[in-house]
Amino acid sequence: MNIRTNSARFLSDLHHLRSFGVCGTGVVRPAFSDADIAARKWLAGRVAEAGLQPEIDAIGNVFGVHPAQKSLLLGSHTDSQPEGGWLDGAFGVISALEVARASLEGNGPPVSVVSFQDEEGRFGGVGGSEVWTGARSLSDADQRVDSDGIPLGVARQAMAGMVTSQVDPARFTGFIEAHIEQGPELDLAGQSIGVVTAIVGFRQIDFVFEGRQNHAGTTMMATRRDAFQGLVTFTAAINDKLGDLVTPTTVWTVGHVLVHPNAASIVPGRVEFSVQWRDAKAELLEQMAQVIRDTAQETAVQCGLSVEAGVMAEIAPVPVDTDLRRALIDSAEERAPDRWREMPSGALHDASNVARVLPIGMLFVPSIGGISHALDEDTHKSDLLTGLEVLAGAVARLHPK
Amino acid sequence: MNIRTNSARFLSDLHHLRSFGVCGTGVVRPAFSDADIAARKWLAGRVAEAGLQPEIDAIGNVFGVHPAQKSLLLGSHTDSQPEGGWLDGAFGVISALEVARASLEGNGPPVSVVSFQDEEGRFGGVGGSEVWTGARSLSDADQRVDSDGIPLGVARQAMAGMVTSQVDPARFTGFIEAHIEQGPELDLAGQSIGVVTAIVGFRQIDFVFEGRQNHAGTTMMATRRDAFQGLVTFTAAINDKLGDLVTPTTVWTVGHVLVHPNAASIVPGRVEFSVQWRDAKAELLEQMAQVIRDTAQETAVQCGLSVEAGVMAEIAPVPVDTDLRRALIDSAEERAPDRWREMPSGALHDASNVARVLPIGMLFVPSIGGISHALDEDTHKSDLLTGLEVLAGAVARLHPK
Repeated sequence: MNIRTNSARFLSDLHHLRSFGVCGTGVVRPAFSDADIAARKWLAGRVAEAGLQPEIDAIGNVFGVHPAQKSLLLGSHTDSQPEGGWLDGAFGVISALEVARASLEGNGPPVSVVSFQDEEGRFGGVGGSEVWTGARSLSDADQRVDSDGIPLGVARQAMAGMVTSQVDPARFTGFIEAHIEQGPELDLAGQSIGVVTAIVGFRQIDFVFEGRQNHAGTTMMATRRDAFQGLVTFTAAINDKLGDLVTPTTVWTVGHVLVHPNAASIVPGRVEFSVQWRDAKAELLEQMAQVIRDTAQETAVQCGLSVEAGVMAEIAPVPVDTDLRRALIDSAEERAPDRWREMPSGALHDASNVARVLPIGMLFVPSIGGISHALDEDTHKSDLLTGLEVLAGAVARLHPK
Repeated sequence: MNIRTNSARFLSDLHHLRSFGVCGTGVVRPAFSDADIAARKWLAGRVAEAGLQPEIDAIGNVFGVHPAQKSLLLGSHTDSQPEGGWLDGAFGVISALEVARASLEGNGPPVSVVSFQDEEGRFGGVGGSEVWTGARSLSDADQRVDSDGIPLGVARQAMAGMVTSQVDPARFTGFIEAHIEQGPELDLAGQSIGVVTAIVGFRQIDFVFEGRQNHAGTTMMATRRDAFQGLVTFTAAINDKLGDLVTPTTVWTVGHVLVHPNAASIVPGRVEFSVQWRDAKAELLEQMAQVIRDTAQETAVQCGLSVEAGVMAEIAPVPVDTDLRRALIDSAEERAPDRWREMPSGALHDASNVARVLPIGMLFVPSIGGISHALDEDTHKSDLLTGLEVLAGAVARLHPK
């Protein structure tokens, strides 16, 4: 069977959603802002017009539930970063709306829609899907505060009058999230579709090297214990060693560096820095942890420093369901032959939480120039439409008639 | 001839000077503070008691001038860092006082004493000697402000009632500054005396590498333009190249580093950093500048970054007078055989300015653990006394009777 989506209606809804909190080419629509609440109210109306049952749960997730006993859930989020792009989350929600609507019109398979709340982390990332999947209780989430000190429990009162009821995850057979890539890989390769193989896991250790702060004129090179030189030695060494161990999609980053006392005339006595690494395979993440820890110790000995390693932060990789992935691959191959690839998701998504309760799949469209979390994030219209068609095609494949 | 110094009197005066602004084992006596002014008033009284003519010039330099038409000038400074050690500057001034006094008592050669004002840079380093030697006009110096925005012209009003007259540098035949080493080299070697070969020159360039800020999960290693990785590559490369070029007393330092946006999950898009290098030879400083500039360019190309180099800051090396150096060497060899060495001064001193108008020499005593510009700076009493004797011996050698 086929699900005949309406491109014009899809684009019109996508642009309408952009009007809530529009700011230049992007949007300012953080969770529970007036713009966010207005967008959620509009979405609830739009799913109702499509023939789905609108439901808004206590934390502000908006559903459009198909009347069938079981349906496939599609969606993402409609809240934005403090200054965000117009498609981050929005593409996944409006493509879900269009596929669900087109499927209803064409007597296709039952499809439901969701926009999770606070994916962008005003109160901590992927918060709406975290509560929906039971990974965090609502009362616990209510204690979380934003950067102004406002608790979520207070902020969500602004939506209290809209809440209908909780939606049971058991209503759904699986979840597919379409999303912008938020990286440059598809755009650089001139491709339109990424079928996600896994959502990568994440580890991070914050280290401190301590040496001896000294006068940069009177302390000879041979007697220095320069903490910044330790970081240089360490970083070069892990680059060498990890390069031999990893795959082309493994990443590692030294992104946060504080040098003390940070003066041109003083030999640095202390440096604090983060090492973060991501991969789809838990075993590889663990091997990398070993290399990184060992190298920090070796560097400390070599450079006459002491080293402290903080507690390792850890998020496990999330596998993608084989059947959903297969449906997306087959659909991509049909609609965009030679213009798709399989790839891991380097970023966390609501699908990471949903994987606890449902099989998940994910689909990427390119981000022009890899730009994300910025007002000038964008995707070519043709790629948005290809993404919509590939999603519709995958849904049709999952429910052959 | 011999100059018979009085160790007890010398140590008593040194400890008395410490009482002005004493703070734990160190002192808080920045230029023009109440403690600094009280110390200068005491010093003027002490040189008068010794039979020297006390003079205080407009910027606050305190002299004890020998009545002879020409004399040898000894001294350093009595102001301190905001939190400083008790011997930094003080050792040079009180050893000068004791040698001048002992020489007068023993009918030795004519010796004058100086404590320059604001060596530690409340209004910019070595300010008192800069004005005394004509390198900066008093009216220009008066415009300089401290970190609270107070101009020197206002601050020095607190000493206005003490000013006598300017002292003509032509009154002196040369200048010897005794000082603590402010580095660990003598202490590590178990030596008591450093005879300074030159005050090293100094160069500094502040660089910026600009790459592309990106998501640390979604941007593959191969497509990154990571500015911090550029700094790692650059630093390792200059370490290699400079290592082949320099002498054991040449130093270079990356002491100031700012990473943008400095977040663990973001590939650094920009890094600002300082490279500072010091050596006694101007030609070598220039060769190093070439290596450092070239390596920054090469790194930028290699890592896909752009590079900006700021204007190079530059202070030329200051040579030491051959005769003064010879007198110090011969005296050190006599008083402390096998416990002295020749060495460059890695730090700037008042002698750097005085070299514009007089032949200069410098003498170091060890800093325990290399600690300087800190309340716990110290030197063993035996080394202070050896320093005093070597200074007296050098003065005696310069004026054979």
